[in-house]
Amino acid sequence: MRVGVIRVITISEKEELERHGKLIERLFPGIETVSACIQDQPRGVYDRETERLAAEKVVRLASEMEGNVDAIFISCAADPGVEELKGKLSVPVVGAGECLASLARALGQKVGVLTIAEGVPEPIRRDLRGFLWEKVEGAESTLDLRSRLDSVLQAAKALLRKGCDVIALACTGFSTIGAAPLIRRETGVPALDPVVAAGSVLYNLLCGERGW
Amino acid sequence: MRVGVIRVITISEKEELERHGKLIERLFPGIETVSACIQDQPRGVYDRETERLAAEKVVRLASEMEGNVDAIFISCAADPGVEELKGKLSVPVVGAGECLASLARALGQKVGVLTIAEGVPEPIRRDLRGFLWEKVEGAESTLDLRSRLDSVLQAAKALLRKGCDVIALACTGFSTIGAAPLIRRETGVPALDPVVAAGSVLYNLLCGERGW
Repeated sequence: MRVGVIRVITISEKEELERHGKLIERLFPGIETVSACIQDQPRGVYDRETERLAAEKVVRLASEMEGNVDAIFISCAADPGVEELKGKLSVPVVGAGECLASLARALGQKVGVLTIAEGVPEPIRRDLRGFLWEKVEGAESTLDLRSRLDSVLQAAKALLRKGCDVIALACTGFSTIGAAPLIRRETGVPALDPVVAAGSVLYNLLCGERGW
Repeated sequence: MRVGVIRVITISEKEELERHGKLIERLFPGIETVSACIQDQPRGVYDRETERLAAEKVVRLASEMEGNVDAIFISCAADPGVEELKGKLSVPVVGAGECLASLARALGQKVGVLTIAEGVPEPIRRDLRGFLWEKVEGAESTLDLRSRLDSVLQAAKALLRKGCDVIALACTGFSTIGAAPLIRRETGVPALDPVVAAGSVLYNLLCGERGW
């Protein structure tokens, strides 16, 4: 099964562009990914305007990919373009935000949502009934997460003190820096990664196809 | 990671008891399962009364398993006992119904729900906004599915004619007979298996633990 991965940040370096796709390939044997990214957004999605701009580009990019893949994954917790695309293409389209919210609902009673400064992405607010929230100090965009592992851990610990039983990492920048295993190791609480969440949702399509 | 699998049907034969757990182990490397079943319900859950009886037994069984596993999976699309258990134990508890509904929401625009005679399980009605529905002719309980592969396929085709883009198999008896790959092969439409759905939700706990 081939999954098209759309990154909502402009990336020129191939390894960086393919990082989320390769994570899915590593964890879900049988899934192959092809990655593409939107243009002219070097800091990605971090407010309403960049989200709106990204959504238009995502819709165009997904339509170009459609004939070449079995499913499309929009790798951003704000799910830009996802609602517009659903049901319009011949292949399933999923967003990191909706997948993360779905899994967090099933796995946690008190979900702690960790974000960048932008706030809690709309799909998470829509699909999770009640949650705790912390943002990572100083992280205005996804890029800022790289240099703020300490702040990520501090925010995770603050969520724990508030009483969460699972942490939902509501920005795919957390996937890029490997925050889920780090938080799990340092705090013992399960942390849900948005790219892994999407991979595990898409894996269900493959399982049916391959049989057992 | 060790997952406790609770079967809501009384099964004496070891291979049969472990069938759902082994399916999860095969598809999700790194997950190990231990299976147990409720007593005195040889036909499983097929109406309100058997669901109520099962729920009480599931709660007891899960409490006994708690210290010995990292998560508990109630392998029934009606999720008996799941709401009662959530937040009460020291480990996450998920039901096949809620996991299936979550994935179907993300993967389909028009979800076709396939059931036994009992009707659409409550977690599916609660978590899916709008869906198509067919039941398998002559299947009063999960056991009846074994001898009705033709009826399963016919009901799946009826859902397709109604316009669904994904089929949610809303009884774990469909997992026992391998209905998902069969439907996929015969109709081309993706069919979501409730046991695989739960496995893919639980896999997220393991991914964080192992790191990447």
